[in-house]
Amino acid sequence: MADSRPGGRSERVRVAILDAALAQLMSDGYDALSIGRVAKAAGVAETTVYRRWPTSADLAASALAHLAHTENPIPDTGSLAGDLRAILRQIIDLISRPDVERIVRTSAALDTTAAETRKSFWENRLASSAAIVESAVTRGELAAGTDPGEVMEFLVAPAYLRLLLLDRPLDADLLETSVRRTLAAFGAS
Amino acid sequence: MADSRPGGRSERVRVAILDAALAQLMSDGYDALSIGRVAKAAGVAETTVYRRWPTSADLAASALAHLAHTENPIPDTGSLAGDLRAILRQIIDLISRPDVERIVRTSAALDTTAAETRKSFWENRLASSAAIVESAVTRGELAAGTDPGEVMEFLVAPAYLRLLLLDRPLDADLLETSVRRTLAAFGAS
Repeated sequence: MADSRPGGRSERVRVAILDAALAQLMSDGYDALSIGRVAKAAGVAETTVYRRWPTSADLAASALAHLAHTENPIPDTGSLAGDLRAILRQIIDLISRPDVERIVRTSAALDTTAAETRKSFWENRLASSAAIVESAVTRGELAAGTDPGEVMEFLVAPAYLRLLLLDRPLDADLLETSVRRTLAAFGAS
Repeated sequence: MADSRPGGRSERVRVAILDAALAQLMSDGYDALSIGRVAKAAGVAETTVYRRWPTSADLAASALAHLAHTENPIPDTGSLAGDLRAILRQIIDLISRPDVERIVRTSAALDTTAAETRKSFWENRLASSAAIVESAVTRGELAAGTDPGEVMEFLVAPAYLRLLLLDRPLDADLLETSVRRTLAAFGAS
């Protein structure tokens, strides 16, 4: 029976595969992602990869989710302002890294394989960060029924726009402005 | 002496060149933009193009500014809400066109030639739309000192994020939400 506990063999194999896929994505981009090369780099049989990720799009989506899970955990600081600031700071740090910036740009460029990867990655991320909004509703900081996806879109959109199209800095000013504007936009108390 | 009045010969030549450049950008992308082919399509000598646009990046930036100028004029409806709704509707209509979507995606992907094009295009657009915020300040709808670029970034960012990364619809709901959230974010009265 597979041992999927954290630290178990199955989990170590999963992480080795995702790390290898991520390294390959970052150096060569989506189009070049090869399950054969990832399996070789991770020291496993190709079938081990295919069993869990039937297509390279599935593998790319999981590798990016793995990156986000590791580098961009969902914060729980006790206040909406604190949570929004913490998650946006992580995102800005992450997409400011040249290797990650390259992946984001490539992802934005493609509309075939990458579209599926993008879609599952973002659905997953928006769903995970819903906890931030739900906690804020529980604490009475946001109105019941506030759409978590909408809050996150508004919070992160200026950072991605600056990165991808405006060539304006992702600095502390953007961070504070985005948090403050988002709180005001959703009538946070 | 060159006749640069609207409808004058110099102006007709300029528009013919920009139309040809735009058509080529839309069909073949940035990387393939060739001043020689643009000159041929516009029926002018290459030197006529080079005199005004020394590099293909200059030409691409002007062609996109020409598209924006034609399809996306700065509105003046008499209210901030009206202006924001009008300009965002135009932008959504424009970037929803498959040929324009392709240019936006390509533009986001590249970080060499395209970066200069992107930068001058956006600086130009943010500067033109400053009039919307300035009028709103004059009417007392926004506080004096409101940064026009910041307002425009917040207004349009979710639409670009949806187009480029989220694969979520650019629909009437996004339009209304973005306008409403932006008004609230900047404390518009």
